[in-house]
Amino acid sequence: MSVAETTTATMAADMHALGVRARHAAASMALADPARKSEALQLAAAAIRADRAAILAANQRDLAEAGALSGAMRDRLLLNDGRSEAMAKGLEEVAALPDPVGTQLARWTRPNGLDIARVRIPIGVIGIIYESRPNVTADAAGLCLRSGNAAILRGGSESFHSSHAIAACLRRGIREAGLPEDAVQLVPSRDREAVGMMLRLNGLIDVVVPRGGKGLIERVQREASMPVIAHLEGNCHVYIHAEADPDEAKKIVINAKMRRTGVCGAAETLLIDHAVAGQHLPAILAELHGAGCEIRGDEAVRALDPAAHIATEQDWFTEFLDAILAVRVVDGLEAAVAHINHYGSHHTDAIVTENAEVAETFLRRVDSAIVLWNASTQFADGGEFGMGAEIGIGTGRLPPRGPVGAEQLTSYKYVVRGNGQVRP
Amino acid sequence: MSVAETTTATMAADMHALGVRARHAAASMALADPARKSEALQLAAAAIRADRAAILAANQRDLAEAGALSGAMRDRLLLNDGRSEAMAKGLEEVAALPDPVGTQLARWTRPNGLDIARVRIPIGVIGIIYESRPNVTADAAGLCLRSGNAAILRGGSESFHSSHAIAACLRRGIREAGLPEDAVQLVPSRDREAVGMMLRLNGLIDVVVPRGGKGLIERVQREASMPVIAHLEGNCHVYIHAEADPDEAKKIVINAKMRRTGVCGAAETLLIDHAVAGQHLPAILAELHGAGCEIRGDEAVRALDPAAHIATEQDWFTEFLDAILAVRVVDGLEAAVAHINHYGSHHTDAIVTENAEVAETFLRRVDSAIVLWNASTQFADGGEFGMGAEIGIGTGRLPPRGPVGAEQLTSYKYVVRGNGQVRP
Repeated sequence: MSVAETTTATMAADMHALGVRARHAAASMALADPARKSEALQLAAAAIRADRAAILAANQRDLAEAGALSGAMRDRLLLNDGRSEAMAKGLEEVAALPDPVGTQLARWTRPNGLDIARVRIPIGVIGIIYESRPNVTADAAGLCLRSGNAAILRGGSESFHSSHAIAACLRRGIREAGLPEDAVQLVPSRDREAVGMMLRLNGLIDVVVPRGGKGLIERVQREASMPVIAHLEGNCHVYIHAEADPDEAKKIVINAKMRRTGVCGAAETLLIDHAVAGQHLPAILAELHGAGCEIRGDEAVRALDPAAHIATEQDWFTEFLDAILAVRVVDGLEAAVAHINHYGSHHTDAIVTENAEVAETFLRRVDSAIVLWNASTQFADGGEFGMGAEIGIGTGRLPPRGPVGAEQLTSYKYVVRGNGQVRP
Repeated sequence: MSVAETTTATMAADMHALGVRARHAAASMALADPARKSEALQLAAAAIRADRAAILAANQRDLAEAGALSGAMRDRLLLNDGRSEAMAKGLEEVAALPDPVGTQLARWTRPNGLDIARVRIPIGVIGIIYESRPNVTADAAGLCLRSGNAAILRGGSESFHSSHAIAACLRRGIREAGLPEDAVQLVPSRDREAVGMMLRLNGLIDVVVPRGGKGLIERVQREASMPVIAHLEGNCHVYIHAEADPDEAKKIVINAKMRRTGVCGAAETLLIDHAVAGQHLPAILAELHGAGCEIRGDEAVRALDPAAHIATEQDWFTEFLDAILAVRVVDGLEAAVAHINHYGSHHTDAIVTENAEVAETFLRRVDSAIVLWNASTQFADGGEFGMGAEIGIGTGRLPPRGPVGAEQLTSYKYVVRGNGQVRP
């Protein structure tokens, strides 16, 4: 074998060994006492606080190795006192969440006396592949621990040293709580090839969660040999119905678009009923312009707002993640629903109306993970849903769909109790 | 392009068009009234009764084209009056099942007043790939209809004419109920390549369910670009604990092994505690021998039963689906659990004991979709669980795990009702 082949073979063997260790750790974690898991999370938080200096030094090393970075890239990679403390606090919050494992989801008795229960169990081994934010190491591992899973983490190569320093704290917390430290493992290689190897570990990794840009998610969906919990785009809509309260509509649109433009729940397209466009739209667009938002409208919008650019067909499909809003005048509920189901990404969509019947039709007919009535799309978030934390928002059609918290990282088994029944 | 290339391109275009039609039908089905879906199922049953002669003639054509077949193969392919009537009855039973769509799975209010509900919806388009039994056409399509999904069916090439005749009845029932007949479509080509094309229709097919032998399931898992609900092997165990009631133990073992040897819930390995093997095993093995069952035991079993063959390492891993039972003497609960988790297939495993604490430990520690206490493994069946019917038993770790009925062919969405909330 050539040197390159030897390296590849060694890396493959290492990745397989990592998967086997995770599988063993998962078997222990599945049976771990809830209090023990909470303790591990609290001890991991304490370790992050105790090791703050080492974590920040590792982060400085990452920043130095990365060389010239754009401001946004640098900001994503940077850790400081505040962000380090936020990781520790996040772990403590997850420690306080109810333990989902062992919950009885349903139970019934058959006419023959068999007592059947559906009981929540961990999934097993969860692979998480993420990009530059090193804090995902703590956030994702914390949720996996709470739900009794083992995690295999592969961070961005640019956050390699930071992620290692954070993972070491998590492993220490787990070990000190008497649980297997291999419940959290970081892929030891920065090589891009290691991701491909990880995606072929079916049988050892039960599900993989990619967190990052579209390129990463598409690669994972293409190459993974195991199920993927994918968080694709959030091309979110706000639809102002003819019977909307105009002040509420304005407030919701401004918040949905401008509160934070870079989050997946940010609105990207505004639809408004023809009947009220002339009446309500100018004030809304004026406020958006004032906040620095670019408007891309159809001809009807342009007629009301000469400052608007003309929207292209592609704009209706686009998740801008920026201060840009596509705006279209539609002919009522049917047209709005058709637009959203055609151009949208099945993530999060909202209607503003005072008409309850119209609202219920919208909620039923819009085929998205989250549908809202008279509320901002920016509520698309596990924390806002009361889940404590989230690892992402599932945009596939199969569960877990919507915010993925600790409860969504579980599966179930059937427990059947009898007294000698045999099948006729 | 060569003729072969033209044919391939045409087939690919046909498959894509079929997927688009299914997607449109799924959108209507998702909103269909429960009563309308029940009516479609009843009308399909009536159509199968009315067309019985045509269905049986199509089946005779399949049998003639198949040429020489083994008895078992011929039996799987054969339809007769009884089996045709069973399909009609099965559809009527599914028509009477509760409609899972629209059920509220959870609902809570956040401190800010947002009212959040998790609501059951259909998955969308379900692909079903099966082998020679033509009745799967009716059974699988029926469950998909009940749960508001559209189905794309690909039956075995040897049952091509039978499946077409049955699918025509289903489509007629759907049409007569005022629903889109494309909610049930059969892949029009018998070409093996059509399966590969079907497995690449991600975005149009949401999940694929293979039903058949290990070869088919492995091919689907390898090639599918969408999630797979896979039903792998049922290497099921019965463990007789030292505190088992001997009569109950014997009754359960005989039933679990011999009631039907070819079903996935049939027991393949018997484990018995060392402490009671000498006392209980001879009577059990004598009855099994008497029923025509071959015994493959470890040395301890051979010492008690000279008629037993010696079991190989491979036997512990094997789903015999035949009148063969592997038998091993173990040193208590821990050893039994370790054996099952190592050699088993995570399908269905049972313990026989009068000790409740031991039983609960077994139920918790055995990592299988179905775990039973004092009952036969042959209860591993959607009908026996009260689900009315099943499309298979999920042996993966992610939901749906265990019997897959109408309810398991659904997903969910979040419906959020507010009164003007924006996110701070």
